[in-house]
Amino acid sequence: MSEHHLARFYSGRRVLVTGGLGFIGSNLAHRLVALGGDVLLVDALLPDCGGNWFNIAEVRDRLRVAVADLRDAATMAELVADREVVFNLAGQISHIDSMRDPLSDLEANCRGPLTLLEACRRHNPAARVVYAGTRQVYGCPVSLPVDEQHPTRPTDVNGADKLAGEQYHFVYHHAYGLRVTSLRLTNTYGPRQLLRHNRQGFLPWFIRCALDGAEITLYGDGSQRRDLTYVDDAVDAFLRAGASDAAGGEVFNLGGLEPIALRDLARLIVELAGSGSVRSIPWPDEKRRIDIGSFYADYTKIRRALGWEPRVDIAEGLQRTIAFYRASGEHYR
Amino acid sequence: MSEHHLARFYSGRRVLVTGGLGFIGSNLAHRLVALGGDVLLVDALLPDCGGNWFNIAEVRDRLRVAVADLRDAATMAELVADREVVFNLAGQISHIDSMRDPLSDLEANCRGPLTLLEACRRHNPAARVVYAGTRQVYGCPVSLPVDEQHPTRPTDVNGADKLAGEQYHFVYHHAYGLRVTSLRLTNTYGPRQLLRHNRQGFLPWFIRCALDGAEITLYGDGSQRRDLTYVDDAVDAFLRAGASDAAGGEVFNLGGLEPIALRDLARLIVELAGSGSVRSIPWPDEKRRIDIGSFYADYTKIRRALGWEPRVDIAEGLQRTIAFYRASGEHYR
Repeated sequence: MSEHHLARFYSGRRVLVTGGLGFIGSNLAHRLVALGGDVLLVDALLPDCGGNWFNIAEVRDRLRVAVADLRDAATMAELVADREVVFNLAGQISHIDSMRDPLSDLEANCRGPLTLLEACRRHNPAARVVYAGTRQVYGCPVSLPVDEQHPTRPTDVNGADKLAGEQYHFVYHHAYGLRVTSLRLTNTYGPRQLLRHNRQGFLPWFIRCALDGAEITLYGDGSQRRDLTYVDDAVDAFLRAGASDAAGGEVFNLGGLEPIALRDLARLIVELAGSGSVRSIPWPDEKRRIDIGSFYADYTKIRRALGWEPRVDIAEGLQRTIAFYRASGEHYR
Repeated sequence: MSEHHLARFYSGRRVLVTGGLGFIGSNLAHRLVALGGDVLLVDALLPDCGGNWFNIAEVRDRLRVAVADLRDAATMAELVADREVVFNLAGQISHIDSMRDPLSDLEANCRGPLTLLEACRRHNPAARVVYAGTRQVYGCPVSLPVDEQHPTRPTDVNGADKLAGEQYHFVYHHAYGLRVTSLRLTNTYGPRQLLRHNRQGFLPWFIRCALDGAEITLYGDGSQRRDLTYVDDAVDAFLRAGASDAAGGEVFNLGGLEPIALRDLARLIVELAGSGSVRSIPWPDEKRRIDIGSFYADYTKIRRALGWEPRVDIAEGLQRTIAFYRASGEHYR
């Protein structure tokens, strides 16, 4: 699917992005604006979830924003009614917060999507819906790399709720014919991600520590390997899924070019930032219990179906990310 | 695990049964009372969910009942505090209702269990918790019989929520060491099941139609096969899971002696009841879309681990059930 094809599909296309002020949602919004889409964002600006007006400052006059909660059925009915593609990225993504406050995670990641899907079914059953799923639904890998057939046994409440959120999409697909796709994201990184706390994944926190000239703390020897997706690549996958008939009813893994050990990643960030350091400490017990060890995904399915593959390598992606936060970091802390 | 072993384990044992006024919960309560347990039931008496005071009329003075909702965290903290075994059977079980009112299903089947688990973690982390899971988590079988490794792809909101409810139990097992077991029930039938409406599974409705001298309606040719568990056998599985160290952290299928085609089952019910008739009609479209075809479970795992197997055959179980409703049917309509 070429840039030309995407531009033809999205030019003038009425799209909705939930979580549109957040990290991936706002990067997607930038691309959609560039492609000439009729872009409506919805975001509840929930505390600590990454919604940030600065994320869309450059395109603010070329799209519309509704500050609203997916759980508000009446508002969602209005917002989805004329949209042709719904990118459903709203949610709470912190594993840690989901264990501290499981009922809030349930609200954000189960009630939110279910209310949105009900709105689509009742008011816009022809919409295409692309959901931001997560590799967390797999839990501890029983084999690597992990493909879409791998058992789903999440190890934290966030993973269980995101799995339920994904299942709802497919229930609505089978029962009502809604054209849904789930992209199971791995560790996505890049500009416009919240750096304020360390509860939204290790990567933005590593970057913040390095930029601050502080220590990056690794648990154990840092030998567990992970795959990373640069946010532009993740956005490209959303665009392809929204524009393709072949994506309806399908789950696709995203992935990265090469898995990297956390210790090598930490060292690379310190090297590229020119500041910070890396320190190893023993595993805290409560962290070890929900850690999943090495994880990297097999993205063969989406490569074959939609021609997607990651293009930005880790060094390049990190350089762009560090440059972004050097310029605009004060908006993300 | 002999009757003697169960009596020794449950005699004086402090147990809690959530959904204790419902179909399986009340049958379990009867057995626990007979075994000499210190039995506390909790039930919210949610409309249409099967909670019924008549279910425990014979043992009312030998157990305690709290009318309370699992979602009430303060009350649950009180109720779980001194309990050694928690049988977690509360929930909404209607597939049909879950599609009509998905948010109520979410409340009952996600928020309820999550609140209970939080109460256990905070106030009674040594409790054993046995959860009433369901074969619905599997969705359409990709092979038969279905064992516990089969993919979990529920086809309705109720299945998605029950899967999330089960996953929470295992998240709390891995993260906090809670000793949890899930029994994935197939079609359980027997005395004390609600007959008032046809939204809690086909079997009680078939029985009611036959007893009323009415028509049992089959969709299509009724050739799809299902396995049935008589409620006494299901109760036996709960008792074994609660009494066994080997059950901690495990998911087990229940099952039946022989799968039976729905048309044969309907004819058998009519024959045993001596009234009613069977009629086939074409599949309604909205029913066909969420139907899963034939389903029967492989229960080898629980047979090996806990020595459980179904003992009551279909004819015997149906005879007992019909006799029960002939005597007490007015309390269930």
